[in-house]
Amino acid sequence: MAKILRVNMTDRTAAYEDVPDKYKFLGGRGLTSTIVHDEVDPTCHPLGPNNKIVFAPGIVTGTNAPTSGRVSVGGKSPLTGGIKESNAGTGWSQLVGRLGIKAIIVEGYPTDDGWWGLHITKDGAEFFPADEYTGKGLYEVYPLLFDKFGKKVGIASIGIAGERKYANSGVCFNDIDNRPSRYSGRGGLGAVLGSKHLKFIVVDGEGAPGVEIVNKGLFDQGRKKLTQALRSHDITKPGGGLNSYGTAILVNIINEAGGLPTRNFREGRFEGAAKTSGEAMAELCKTRGGVGTMGHPCHPGCIIQCSNVIPNPDGSELVSVIEYETTWAFGANCGIDDLDVIGKLTWMANNYGMDTIEAGGTIAVAMEAGLAEFGDGKRAIELMEEIGKGTPLGHILGQGAATTGKVFGVVRVPGVKGQNMPAYEPRAIKGIGMTYAISTMGADHTSGYTIAPEILACGGDVDQFDVDKAELVRNFQYATAFIDSTGHCLFIAFAILDIPEGFEGLVEECNGVLGTEWTMDDVGRIGKEILAKERAFNAAAGFTKADDRLPEFMKYEKLPPHDVVWDVPDETLDAVFEE
Amino acid sequence: MAKILRVNMTDRTAAYEDVPDKYKFLGGRGLTSTIVHDEVDPTCHPLGPNNKIVFAPGIVTGTNAPTSGRVSVGGKSPLTGGIKESNAGTGWSQLVGRLGIKAIIVEGYPTDDGWWGLHITKDGAEFFPADEYTGKGLYEVYPLLFDKFGKKVGIASIGIAGERKYANSGVCFNDIDNRPSRYSGRGGLGAVLGSKHLKFIVVDGEGAPGVEIVNKGLFDQGRKKLTQALRSHDITKPGGGLNSYGTAILVNIINEAGGLPTRNFREGRFEGAAKTSGEAMAELCKTRGGVGTMGHPCHPGCIIQCSNVIPNPDGSELVSVIEYETTWAFGANCGIDDLDVIGKLTWMANNYGMDTIEAGGTIAVAMEAGLAEFGDGKRAIELMEEIGKGTPLGHILGQGAATTGKVFGVVRVPGVKGQNMPAYEPRAIKGIGMTYAISTMGADHTSGYTIAPEILACGGDVDQFDVDKAELVRNFQYATAFIDSTGHCLFIAFAILDIPEGFEGLVEECNGVLGTEWTMDDVGRIGKEILAKERAFNAAAGFTKADDRLPEFMKYEKLPPHDVVWDVPDETLDAVFEE
Repeated sequence: MAKILRVNMTDRTAAYEDVPDKYKFLGGRGLTSTIVHDEVDPTCHPLGPNNKIVFAPGIVTGTNAPTSGRVSVGGKSPLTGGIKESNAGTGWSQLVGRLGIKAIIVEGYPTDDGWWGLHITKDGAEFFPADEYTGKGLYEVYPLLFDKFGKKVGIASIGIAGERKYANSGVCFNDIDNRPSRYSGRGGLGAVLGSKHLKFIVVDGEGAPGVEIVNKGLFDQGRKKLTQALRSHDITKPGGGLNSYGTAILVNIINEAGGLPTRNFREGRFEGAAKTSGEAMAELCKTRGGVGTMGHPCHPGCIIQCSNVIPNPDGSELVSVIEYETTWAFGANCGIDDLDVIGKLTWMANNYGMDTIEAGGTIAVAMEAGLAEFGDGKRAIELMEEIGKGTPLGHILGQGAATTGKVFGVVRVPGVKGQNMPAYEPRAIKGIGMTYAISTMGADHTSGYTIAPEILACGGDVDQFDVDKAELVRNFQYATAFIDSTGHCLFIAFAILDIPEGFEGLVEECNGVLGTEWTMDDVGRIGKEILAKERAFNAAAGFTKADDRLPEFMKYEKLPPHDVVWDVPDETLDAVFEE
Repeated sequence: MAKILRVNMTDRTAAYEDVPDKYKFLGGRGLTSTIVHDEVDPTCHPLGPNNKIVFAPGIVTGTNAPTSGRVSVGGKSPLTGGIKESNAGTGWSQLVGRLGIKAIIVEGYPTDDGWWGLHITKDGAEFFPADEYTGKGLYEVYPLLFDKFGKKVGIASIGIAGERKYANSGVCFNDIDNRPSRYSGRGGLGAVLGSKHLKFIVVDGEGAPGVEIVNKGLFDQGRKKLTQALRSHDITKPGGGLNSYGTAILVNIINEAGGLPTRNFREGRFEGAAKTSGEAMAELCKTRGGVGTMGHPCHPGCIIQCSNVIPNPDGSELVSVIEYETTWAFGANCGIDDLDVIGKLTWMANNYGMDTIEAGGTIAVAMEAGLAEFGDGKRAIELMEEIGKGTPLGHILGQGAATTGKVFGVVRVPGVKGQNMPAYEPRAIKGIGMTYAISTMGADHTSGYTIAPEILACGGDVDQFDVDKAELVRNFQYATAFIDSTGHCLFIAFAILDIPEGFEGLVEECNGVLGTEWTMDDVGRIGKEILAKERAFNAAAGFTKADDRLPEFMKYEKLPPHDVVWDVPDETLDAVFEE
């Protein structure tokens, strides 16, 4: 029987509880958002004693379903002040699922200065002192932990960013090669763990019973359908776009569409885009050789394999991974066109325990404030070093783009609900802008990736400038909330949007594991229920329609090259969830 | 005929307009809040092109009504994100009133880097370049301006705090001796002027026609009644509490009540209180002599005269003025018991153009964050110097206590709507806590000074710990909004709460000036109408009931010496405006 593990940092206890019936069919985001909704006072201080942080593998995570090693992390966000779910792909999640742990709830508040780790095995959960690992980079710390607990454990952790309660602090997980590189990055949940002085959750899957599957035949049938869909769709198949060039295949595509935010969202096209693209990364891997790898999986069992290992000129490892969002955040958004600089900045963000999207957005806002020139990679690295050192400037930048803008009186701060926008310009691509505006998460492309039909002609083909997209945006958000609950990577969406059998397979997998009888119609219903809880939490936390808006400057500043402003009527935004 | 002066910083024009009928009977706060409500998009960025800043003398300001030299300054606050009205007592306001200017509306946005001043005379308004005055302390700049424009002009200005768009930046006015010491301090409106690059508004009253008075006899009758009341009430009379010891007479009283917030609201009683009190200031004036003065007026025609000039040991001027809020903010709240240090910090805040309440609260939060020890005056001065220098740390502190808390991950931040609490502990004095919570202004004692009946037995006598005060709080807020519209100092409230003829006189003065036939019942109605506009603005800006709350820590941290928590039910707070 699956259990919930409740960890209390006041008295340092960790105890297993039965899963209440109401949570039985939930997983991933559905479960973290429901627990946060049920247990956390929406008005609490995110770093105070009454916030909680919840980890939940997806419904099928830990099984051999393809590309399903996601973990959702939830809580009240120190960045947005609202509910947050941020998910990552990591073997850690698979080990938790196989141990029969449906969720880990961390609550309470430390009564002294000590830092702690939690070591979970099939026999129980025990705390270990973690003071010796604080104040250090994660690239230094991870090998020490793997030496101590064995190479096969999974590690969830925070870096110095979380220790210092930076609102840009992710929860870091090990990748397939045990690097500190897989992130539930967005929303500052690392700071919540930091406020509770829980530095690590180490999971040992040795002897784990595995995920309970009620109907193995149905599960296998679904798994095969989904696998087949992933293996046949152009975007997700072996040797397809994601596998060959990683997510950064998007750089040239979005740039061509005039939607690649450049120099802190001043322009929509970057003259240096090609030099920072997935194609350029593949070229580096080829010409520099060494450890350079495209098509690297982030966890065992991923068949898309869109990660990468980027080499230095001498073939040694620069960093893994440079995602599309990352190469954009440190690249076009800062006016930087040098992959070595971008790689170095990425490594630093991983090392400190930060979200690369927010980190790049912060540097761009700092450039806007005059702390550096756009395009100055050397100075960008120095700014990141300030974050690592914890100087006053580092504390500012560590709090993210909105606080940096606030501190320096910058008006052009491209965020929603305090979270900086990712790599798609809302003025040029209206649906994703609507998603940013109304998402419960703040500006977040993964809340509803309408880029698929707006730019990639996947799951439909709609005009990027069309403003009448309330239904599209709504449906994408519902479907996404469901996928985020299954434990699958959101990238399965490309395949299942176009291949109905893949979608069927997804639902059959879940029915197989849970013994439910969901139909494809239930996907929308379940997604809607999750969103309703998240929206209720945010409303109680004080969010209103005024928070479901893009920043004002986008309404009066025209974005080149298309010279477009943000012109989606407020009424359209408000209509998204008013079916 | 009175006019409105509209100043546009985009094309640098200043033009007079007729006063619309709907504004005819408004003045001070009633007028600024109405214009902001009517003309400013509540969702605009406070530092962007669509915010405005409005100056309005009160209804009787510029007449010889006693203690009536207040000016209201309004706009969307960079500190709270809501509507703001902050008023000050200054001869500047009287000159504006006598020139027949009902309001000055500053709008638009600069198109280059230049800084400007506006020089208003009876013949019109002209811009002058002000670049040479930027980056300097106001104590250096004011004499230069008085040399340039004559000793009898009035000056409204911002300091380097406003130039740098610090959210703690007041609008500074000259006092009776032409010091830069009278502040519309709260809410960061200086930064709004800074965003528009308007550094000064210099007003020359030479040849001014004076305030139009429709019924001179009635006005004089009211003026005399109010004067008589002020001259006979123990708190406001010559040689009374305020006149003899200044507002800081409250230090020992509030300390005795266990409501003097100490060391960033950790305790309610300060062992060094007596050393920072009004009595101690009077003693300094007596023993050190020189320029030391208690009973100093802030503008011509004030008969309460609660200001002071505090001397250095050698009798030279340390600073004018140390108010109760100021001696508390830099004193008890920082654990500092040295008036010379408090005076120095006050001088620095005046020199940079900052609100002393927010500045002291910020230093206290910085102490909480470990940047200094509580009680370390030397380090407190160094922190203020950082603000002046504009270092990254200075920018953090310049943004106020909430941002400082945010940047350093501090949970104990005693603010509401982003504005730090003033000098009364809400856990120990419930009515003022309710006022902080529900005020449209953020934590603000001047929104409804329930301390009068809760502590001073003035206008009633209620138990400080009683939580059933919705009606009291409501009525005080309505009456206050009216008084803030008349141009009188709020301190007339002490007298008119206890002396009905004084209250009658106040209404008769207004009727005399305006030709209205208001009764005492209209006071509540008018106050209510003002609050309704302010609340509508805030609601449209995104404020909800969740913003009408005190910080969470006050609910679970007991305040010594009474060991009380914040226990006013949310329903009571929500009932205040739900008559």
